[in-house]
Amino acid sequence: MKCTVCRGPAVMEVRRHNGSFCRDHFLKLCRDQVAKAIKDFDMLDHEDRILVAVSGGKDSLAVWDLLLELGYQADGLYLGLGIGDYSDASGDQARSFASERGLHLIEVDLPTDHGFDIPSGSRAAKRVPCSACGLSKRHLFDDAARRGGYDVVVTGHNLDDEAAVLFGNVLHWQTEYLGRQLPVLPARNGFPKKVKPLVRLGERETAAYCVLRGIDYQVEECPMAAGNRHLGYKEALNAIEATSPGSKHAFYFGFLARASDRFTGEAEADQEQLSACARCGSPTTGDVCAFCKLVERAGGRPAPEPVPVDLGRRR
Amino acid sequence: MKCTVCRGPAVMEVRRHNGSFCRDHFLKLCRDQVAKAIKDFDMLDHEDRILVAVSGGKDSLAVWDLLLELGYQADGLYLGLGIGDYSDASGDQARSFASERGLHLIEVDLPTDHGFDIPSGSRAAKRVPCSACGLSKRHLFDDAARRGGYDVVVTGHNLDDEAAVLFGNVLHWQTEYLGRQLPVLPARNGFPKKVKPLVRLGERETAAYCVLRGIDYQVEECPMAAGNRHLGYKEALNAIEATSPGSKHAFYFGFLARASDRFTGEAEADQEQLSACARCGSPTTGDVCAFCKLVERAGGRPAPEPVPVDLGRRR
Repeated sequence: MKCTVCRGPAVMEVRRHNGSFCRDHFLKLCRDQVAKAIKDFDMLDHEDRILVAVSGGKDSLAVWDLLLELGYQADGLYLGLGIGDYSDASGDQARSFASERGLHLIEVDLPTDHGFDIPSGSRAAKRVPCSACGLSKRHLFDDAARRGGYDVVVTGHNLDDEAAVLFGNVLHWQTEYLGRQLPVLPARNGFPKKVKPLVRLGERETAAYCVLRGIDYQVEECPMAAGNRHLGYKEALNAIEATSPGSKHAFYFGFLARASDRFTGEAEADQEQLSACARCGSPTTGDVCAFCKLVERAGGRPAPEPVPVDLGRRR
Repeated sequence: MKCTVCRGPAVMEVRRHNGSFCRDHFLKLCRDQVAKAIKDFDMLDHEDRILVAVSGGKDSLAVWDLLLELGYQADGLYLGLGIGDYSDASGDQARSFASERGLHLIEVDLPTDHGFDIPSGSRAAKRVPCSACGLSKRHLFDDAARRGGYDVVVTGHNLDDEAAVLFGNVLHWQTEYLGRQLPVLPARNGFPKKVKPLVRLGERETAAYCVLRGIDYQVEECPMAAGNRHLGYKEALNAIEATSPGSKHAFYFGFLARASDRFTGEAEADQEQLSACARCGSPTTGDVCAFCKLVERAGGRPAPEPVPVDLGRRR
């Protein structure tokens, strides 16, 4: 197997791109794909203060590394979710990555700072763990970005993630989620801008990127996620991708090009009706935001001092 | 396992309906689901002259039988596609079903009447067999309905078929196909009305219906279809349905309820620009329809005398 670019020995085949690549040209492919995503969707400026949501897994460490390689300034944010050994090991990977490179890593710990963890908190609140975790992460990313004055939050969602989420949203025709499933969400109504620079890379590629760059990452999947629907959607799409390479890319980018804007109406209507959470000040459609409700039901501690939020179009 | 309705011994579990059914209540479920589809989507009147597209498989024989059970008048149309033993056996099943019940079965034979068969014709025309077959069937159903003065063409597409087609259309975001993927296509521009009364039944149910009603059907799948993408889409959805019963129903009916009309614009625009095929008179967007082009490239015989077609909105 030879590198499609230089004919040297290849280390990685990417069927979707109908090519094989040596180490250097594979790493270049990854940088080029990320640069293209950033440019095509107007994700980042070189002057932006960027906050990367870092889990310690391959995707978040790859995106942090790639942004630095591409000349962006980016700090990291690690959230301790209190999921036993999994969280301990994930935190260690995030901290090692940052300290070895002299990077700034902000840490928020759910048990220490908010008085509950995902396993017991989700049980107490009678929520599916992945649902409680997702809403906590969204809230804490937004909150940290506002407190730290960051321009944009970067997440490590890759093509496989986005295609699987899209598949789930399409299977249930969740039209309001479809209207919001974009690689860039602009800052508005008190929410920071959020971008997904890895949407042109699959998870096989982000894993290979980390290995080839010598980045140690948390290889285990979250134990709470085992058997969830999202993983079933990934498997279904993997079977299709194996027969028709490029299917996931066509599915996700075809959606963005030809269908996404048919669903934006509902998502925008939702956003018109935000006010400040009575407890933490975050933008919310109710009186109290979903995170503060979760904290209460999970037996956690009330939010620290609210941070003033500019709700923009608030009525 | 007891019947959810009468507590007698059940013969069939339908997880999607969270129930098990004895023979009689399963057959009633099938009739009720078909009656509901017909009513909800305004598919048929009892006065309609109905033409059922009959392949000799479980779905088309089940829908013909169900329509008769529900008091509709329906003739059948069998198309001989020249696919070797498969076509011979399929034709025998269709003929036996009709003759045992004293029903009228129209027959059109592609090799005899049009001078080519699907295997060699699709090769000669350099088309995928399933594509050549699909367009031939659509053309010949429409043509037979016009010649016979039928009000509506019924096809045996079931929930699994429609969900798999929808999945394929969504994977590629084929927006013009999405705009047309409805259980009822009204008569217009020279095309007869087309309806799919089995959209509320899965293929496991139509097979069980035939077995319980003593209907012999062609059990083999078409040998030309083996390994096609459509079957891959069915497998992917089957994996999801196994974990979450009702997923296919939610996918297809959710599309109809909340997404379909977002895609109708393009499909309607396509339909505005039809004229009569120079060879056979069928409505087409070009000078010569796709079927007449296929006939020519497949080395078949020109169409018989054109039948006058009212193109409706023709310019």
